[in-house]
Amino acid sequence: MKTIIILGAGRSASSLIHYLCGHASANEWHIKVGDYQKELADEKIKGFEKVATAFQFDINNEEHRETYISQADIVVSLLPARFHIEAAKVAVKHGVPLTTASYITEEMQALSEEAKKKGIILLNEIGLDPGIDHMSAMKMIEEVKEKGYSIEGFESFTGGLVAPESDNNPWNYKFTWNPRNVVLAGQGGAVRFLHNGKHKYIPYNKVFRRTERIEIEGYGKFEGYANRDSLKYVEKYGLQGVPTVYRGTLRRPGFCRAWSCFVTLGVTDDSYEMENTQDMTYREFINSFLRYNPNDSVELKLMQYLKLSQDDLEMEKLDWLDIFSDKKVGLPKATPAQILQKILEEKWQLDPDDKDMIVMYHKLFYKKEDKNILRTSHMVVKGKDQTYTAMSDTVGIPLAIATKLILQGKITKTGTCIPIHKNIYEPVLEELESMGITFTEQEVVMSPQEMSSL
Amino acid sequence: MKTIIILGAGRSASSLIHYLCGHASANEWHIKVGDYQKELADEKIKGFEKVATAFQFDINNEEHRETYISQADIVVSLLPARFHIEAAKVAVKHGVPLTTASYITEEMQALSEEAKKKGIILLNEIGLDPGIDHMSAMKMIEEVKEKGYSIEGFESFTGGLVAPESDNNPWNYKFTWNPRNVVLAGQGGAVRFLHNGKHKYIPYNKVFRRTERIEIEGYGKFEGYANRDSLKYVEKYGLQGVPTVYRGTLRRPGFCRAWSCFVTLGVTDDSYEMENTQDMTYREFINSFLRYNPNDSVELKLMQYLKLSQDDLEMEKLDWLDIFSDKKVGLPKATPAQILQKILEEKWQLDPDDKDMIVMYHKLFYKKEDKNILRTSHMVVKGKDQTYTAMSDTVGIPLAIATKLILQGKITKTGTCIPIHKNIYEPVLEELESMGITFTEQEVVMSPQEMSSL
Repeated sequence: MKTIIILGAGRSASSLIHYLCGHASANEWHIKVGDYQKELADEKIKGFEKVATAFQFDINNEEHRETYISQADIVVSLLPARFHIEAAKVAVKHGVPLTTASYITEEMQALSEEAKKKGIILLNEIGLDPGIDHMSAMKMIEEVKEKGYSIEGFESFTGGLVAPESDNNPWNYKFTWNPRNVVLAGQGGAVRFLHNGKHKYIPYNKVFRRTERIEIEGYGKFEGYANRDSLKYVEKYGLQGVPTVYRGTLRRPGFCRAWSCFVTLGVTDDSYEMENTQDMTYREFINSFLRYNPNDSVELKLMQYLKLSQDDLEMEKLDWLDIFSDKKVGLPKATPAQILQKILEEKWQLDPDDKDMIVMYHKLFYKKEDKNILRTSHMVVKGKDQTYTAMSDTVGIPLAIATKLILQGKITKTGTCIPIHKNIYEPVLEELESMGITFTEQEVVMSPQEMSSL
Repeated sequence: MKTIIILGAGRSASSLIHYLCGHASANEWHIKVGDYQKELADEKIKGFEKVATAFQFDINNEEHRETYISQADIVVSLLPARFHIEAAKVAVKHGVPLTTASYITEEMQALSEEAKKKGIILLNEIGLDPGIDHMSAMKMIEEVKEKGYSIEGFESFTGGLVAPESDNNPWNYKFTWNPRNVVLAGQGGAVRFLHNGKHKYIPYNKVFRRTERIEIEGYGKFEGYANRDSLKYVEKYGLQGVPTVYRGTLRRPGFCRAWSCFVTLGVTDDSYEMENTQDMTYREFINSFLRYNPNDSVELKLMQYLKLSQDDLEMEKLDWLDIFSDKKVGLPKATPAQILQKILEEKWQLDPDDKDMIVMYHKLFYKKEDKNILRTSHMVVKGKDQTYTAMSDTVGIPLAIATKLILQGKITKTGTCIPIHKNIYEPVLEELESMGITFTEQEVVMSPQEMSSL
C-alpha cells in the first residue's frame, strides 16, 4: 500500500483527485487530501471515501509538515506557489518525491543535489502552462531535431478562454482562472523575444497593440499578445541559435485592442492606492484618469484621450462593463488594478452552466532539404462542467499522471526538474492523448514569399 | 574666525564658493573646500587663496569625517545626495549645523530631535528645485493667507533650459544638468495631482501628452508636464483643502510630444539590459522596438507605429538626433535608457559659449471679495558663462546665503527643516533679489468664463 499526500484542495484539485482516486485501487494507493480548511478536502474526496481520506493541514505548522510528509510515498503540492518550498524541504529530508504545477524557483533548484542524493525527484511545472506547453513543445522540437532538420523558428501560444457555446459578451472572454493575473498581465518588465535573429522589445504601453492573428480550424480566430520573456525558453527548449522564439497568450480578436484602452488610461496600475475609493463610482474612477472638464462627459473625454470614435468596438466593450455607470466601487484604499478587477469580476464571471476552453497553439518552422516547412500543433480542451473545467483538467491531469508514473517507477529521473525530458514527456503526453487531451499537427510547405513576410 | 567646510567641489559648487569666499573677509570666515579629487577643490578656490584652502576628502573615511566636520562652524554638503546623511550624523554629534540643496530623507528627518538638543539646524532643500520653488511659493501663499483670502489653486513649474540666444536645435533643449534624470523623468510611479477638488492620475505613457501651455512676456511660450507627486506639497505648503495643486516641469512647446515618442517606443526603460549593445547601431537600437520586417524602412515602421506623418515636427526632431543613422552605440550591456542618454548627450551638449536659462512660474488662484484673482509670479535667470551657469547660481547662491545667515545667527531655527518658514525664506529671497534673482508678479481678475474653463 502506497500513500499519496495531496496538499491543497482548492478549485484546481478536482481533476487531479478524481484521476488519482480512480487509479487508487488498481495500484494499491491510499490518497490523503489535506487543506487548511478541512471541509474543502472533505468535499473533494466525496465518492472516493474507500481510497481517500481528508485531513486538516497547515503548511506553517512544523508538526503537520513532518507528520504528513514523512509518512507519504509521494507528495503533490497544490498549495499557493510560495509554500511549495516548505513542503519540498521536508520531502527531501525524508526522501519523498514531490510534484507541483508551478514554476521552479531558485530555492527549489537549490534542493536538487540533496534530492539526487536521496534518489528522489522534485518535479515542477507539470500542469498546463507551465506543463503541457513544455511537453508538447519538446516533442515537436526533438522530433524535428532527431531527423537532422534545422529549426528556424518556434512560436507558442496558450489561452484560458470561454467555450464558444458560453461566449455571450462583447469581450468574448470570461475569468476562468486567477483574475488578478489577467489584470496585471504584461506588467513587471519589458516584453522580449527573438524575431528572425533580431532581439525585439515591447514596452507595456504597446504589448496589447502588437498582436499576432492565428486561426484554428473549427474554433475560429484568435489573437496572441507577447508574454514577458520568451528568451528564457531558448535554453530550456534547446533552441540556441534559432532565429525566432516567441511565446504569447491567446484571446479572441478585438480583446487586446480594448484592453489596451485600460493600459493607456493607467487603470491597470497596482503600484499605488487611490484616494476616496470607498465612495467612488465607476464613472468617477474612470474620470480620475481624464482631464478635468466639468462641461464634457466622461465618455467624450475618454474617446478624445484614447482617439476612439463612438462606433469603435472598444467603446461597446468598455460601455458593456458599466465603467461609465454610477455603481459604487466600495473598496477601501484600493489600487486602480484592484478596482478594475472588481469591475471585471462582476461581468466576466462564469455562469453556472458555462464551460471554459483551453487553447494551445505551437508553430515550428524548419528547413527540410531546401524546403521551408511550417508545422503547427494545437490542442483545444473544453470543460465538462463547473467542477471539471478545462483548466482543472489540463492542470491537474498531467500532474496526476506524472505522480502515478513516479510511484510506478516509470519516471526514474532524480533531482529538481521540469518535464522537458523525453522519458517524462513521452509517457505523460501518451496518456493525456488516451484521455482526449490531444494535439493536432499539420505541416505546410511555405513559399519564399510567405517566408519573407513572416 | 569661523570655519565653513564645503564637502564636494563639482560643477554645482562654483557659484556657492564664489559667494562665500566673496563674503569671507568681512565676516572673518575661513573656507575649506574638500573633494575626493583634491584637484577639483584646488581649481574651485583659485583666486580665493587668501580666504580658502582645499583638502582631499573621502566621505567613506571615518577619520576624514571626524577631523574635518568637528573643526567646522558649519558644513555645506554638495556630496551626491546619498552621502549627506553620513556628514549629517557627524555634524549633529559635534553640534555643527549643516546645509544641503537636496531632498530631505527619512534618515535626515530622524536626526531632527538630536539636532534640536544640540541647538543646530540641518537645513535641506535650499537650492533651486527644491529650494527657490519652496521659498517663492510660500511667500505668495502666506501673503494671500495673511490677508484672509481663500486660496483656490496653486500651480508651479520649473525648467532648466537653454537661453534663447544659444537655442539652435529643433528640440529647443540642451542638457544643463544631470542627463540621466531627464531620460528617466516621469518614471517610478503614476503622476498624481489635484484639479478642482478631483484627484487626477496620469500613467507614464501619457505624462508627456497632457501638458499645460504657459507664456512669459519677453520669453515666449513654454509647456509644462506634470511632476510625479504634487500631493506631498499640500501639507508642506499649508494648502490643505485647496482644490487645485499641481507641479510641473517646463520645456519649450513641442518637446513633450516628441519625447513621448521615446516613451511609447520603450527606449527610456532603465530596467533591463539589451543584447549586443556594444556593436549595435543607433538604427538597430530603434529597430529593436519595432516589428520585424526587412522590406520596410525603420523610419516608415516608426511612423506607422507612432501614427506620425513624414512632415510632423516629431520626425524632424527624431531625425536630427541621428537615431536612424549607422553610428555605433559602443556601450557594453546597456539599458535602453543608457543608450538613449548617450545619443542625446552627443546632440544636446552645451557649446562653450552657450548659456543656460532657469525658468520658474507660479500660478496662485484666490478669491478676494467675490472676485477670482490669478496671481502669477515668474523668475527667469540666465547663465553668465560655462562656470557660473544659471543652474549653478540658482542652486548655489540660496544655499550660500542660508549658510551665511545661519553663521550670522540670523536664522535661529533648529532641527531638520526645509525653507518653508518665513524667517528663513524672507531674508534669503530678499538677498537673492538684491543679486538679480528676482520674481515678477502680476495679478489679473478672472471672468467667470475663464474660471470655468480652467
